[in-house]
Amino acid sequence: MELIDGNKTAADIVAELKAEVAALPGRKPCIALVRVGDDPASVSYVKKKEKTAAEIGIESRIILPPISITQDELFNILDDLNADPTVDGILVQAPLPKHIDEVAVFRRVSAAKDVDGFNTINLGKVAQEDDTGFVACTPAGIMELLARSGTDLKGKHVVVLGRSLIVGKPVALLALQKKTGANGTVTICHSGTSNLPAITRQADVLIAAIGRPEFVTADMVKPGAVVIDVGINRVPDASKKTGYRLTGDVHFPSVSPLCSKITPVPGGVGPMTVAMLMKNTVKAYHLATAS
Amino acid sequence: MELIDGNKTAADIVAELKAEVAALPGRKPCIALVRVGDDPASVSYVKKKEKTAAEIGIESRIILPPISITQDELFNILDDLNADPTVDGILVQAPLPKHIDEVAVFRRVSAAKDVDGFNTINLGKVAQEDDTGFVACTPAGIMELLARSGTDLKGKHVVVLGRSLIVGKPVALLALQKKTGANGTVTICHSGTSNLPAITRQADVLIAAIGRPEFVTADMVKPGAVVIDVGINRVPDASKKTGYRLTGDVHFPSVSPLCSKITPVPGGVGPMTVAMLMKNTVKAYHLATAS
Repeated sequence: MELIDGNKTAADIVAELKAEVAALPGRKPCIALVRVGDDPASVSYVKKKEKTAAEIGIESRIILPPISITQDELFNILDDLNADPTVDGILVQAPLPKHIDEVAVFRRVSAAKDVDGFNTINLGKVAQEDDTGFVACTPAGIMELLARSGTDLKGKHVVVLGRSLIVGKPVALLALQKKTGANGTVTICHSGTSNLPAITRQADVLIAAIGRPEFVTADMVKPGAVVIDVGINRVPDASKKTGYRLTGDVHFPSVSPLCSKITPVPGGVGPMTVAMLMKNTVKAYHLATAS
Repeated sequence: MELIDGNKTAADIVAELKAEVAALPGRKPCIALVRVGDDPASVSYVKKKEKTAAEIGIESRIILPPISITQDELFNILDDLNADPTVDGILVQAPLPKHIDEVAVFRRVSAAKDVDGFNTINLGKVAQEDDTGFVACTPAGIMELLARSGTDLKGKHVVVLGRSLIVGKPVALLALQKKTGANGTVTICHSGTSNLPAITRQADVLIAAIGRPEFVTADMVKPGAVVIDVGINRVPDASKKTGYRLTGDVHFPSVSPLCSKITPVPGGVGPMTVAMLMKNTVKAYHLATAS
């Protein structure tokens, strides 16, 4: 069994981007990070993105509206950023407060600056196999982990567990694309699937993104499968100072001995998302400066 | 075995729309039908659409640019139609001449008038399960045939054969939606799938959209399955005056005795597409007049 090391792969990508950005003449790529309110998890995520951007040489512009901001005021901020030629990418940190329509906000971000890949147009471009768009960071990170660990999906059966808009559906569409490394046969299953183990056991590549701790057990996995664990779940653990431990959607102790390759949690898909956000930002810069 | 009658279902939908349109106060829905050049198949398709619109009471505006029209000139026509408040839906008949970028044209049609459902935004909305968009007519017709023939996809395994942008991918996304009648487990397979019969034999509902005449044979179908045949292929037939006959992607004589339900070709999915185009046009009218 080989562990797919997300920390190392993410660090490789960051190093590649750093070299690429260092060689750019003139202005550097710039990402605007919009964080509404002071949710501790959001504070930590935005800090991590800012730090990685700085490491690469991407400028970041931090915008911190108060939790009381109205949707229209937030739209005004986004419109200004959309119009600003020195801003290449815009990230609005989720979750947003309940009085703001998240999907409407993601649509308000110009498709050309939507480095998070949540705009409807960019989702449509994934289906259209149009590379001018931006792929959401988690599915993009999964595909990158597969490619860099030498897993070609051609002729393989890829089973995606979970049909969310930010992971399950886009990763299924990516695995299906007529592109080198992709061309998989894809099954998407979910909480309502009958006889789930019989389906997941067919997977040459199993992508677990169902959001249930240690849901995938040994009886659901074919020996030799590649397993990508997208889950990040907190389960109570009295032995930890925090009172919890992080676990994936896969029961790692029983499943990992069966696999040819598997991602750990933490340290698998998680670290890839920030790296892919930065990759999208550099792409947005290139598209903007080329046009 | 029960035959799913697309002609009857389409006629039912047309009758429903006719009653709905008759009850509308003021101006009636209007569809613009843009046909570039005189390709005989396109002439016949546009005529059929015009006739069905008239039957329902939908106004149609026929625009017939010459085959020599430039892309920019076509864009100008579409921009005028996009801006015209008396036009609800716009259909650009495919195929377009080779000097015109078809995808660019489909994107130029305003998403709010894209009754063909080929605009990137409307494709993204299918993935987002956002009902304010327009679903492309063939996948929408397939879902309607399934619903009206009493086939609930919940807990079922739906296997889609073919990954095209206009059929395979959108119908897979629709079958997967968290909606009454949908909620299927979905597998998308294609020409590069290994061990295809073993996968299609798992289908409770098999949707064949691979564009190969009589490709699906009895050994590929589970007894009791519902089979939807999207193919329309011409195969040489000396016994016919035209020299060919129409056949689906399914070998009907051997497969149909196995099925619980099956669509014939012709007379299955085919007639549904024009009915769904009209349904989309009435929807566009309602969205436009409500706003």
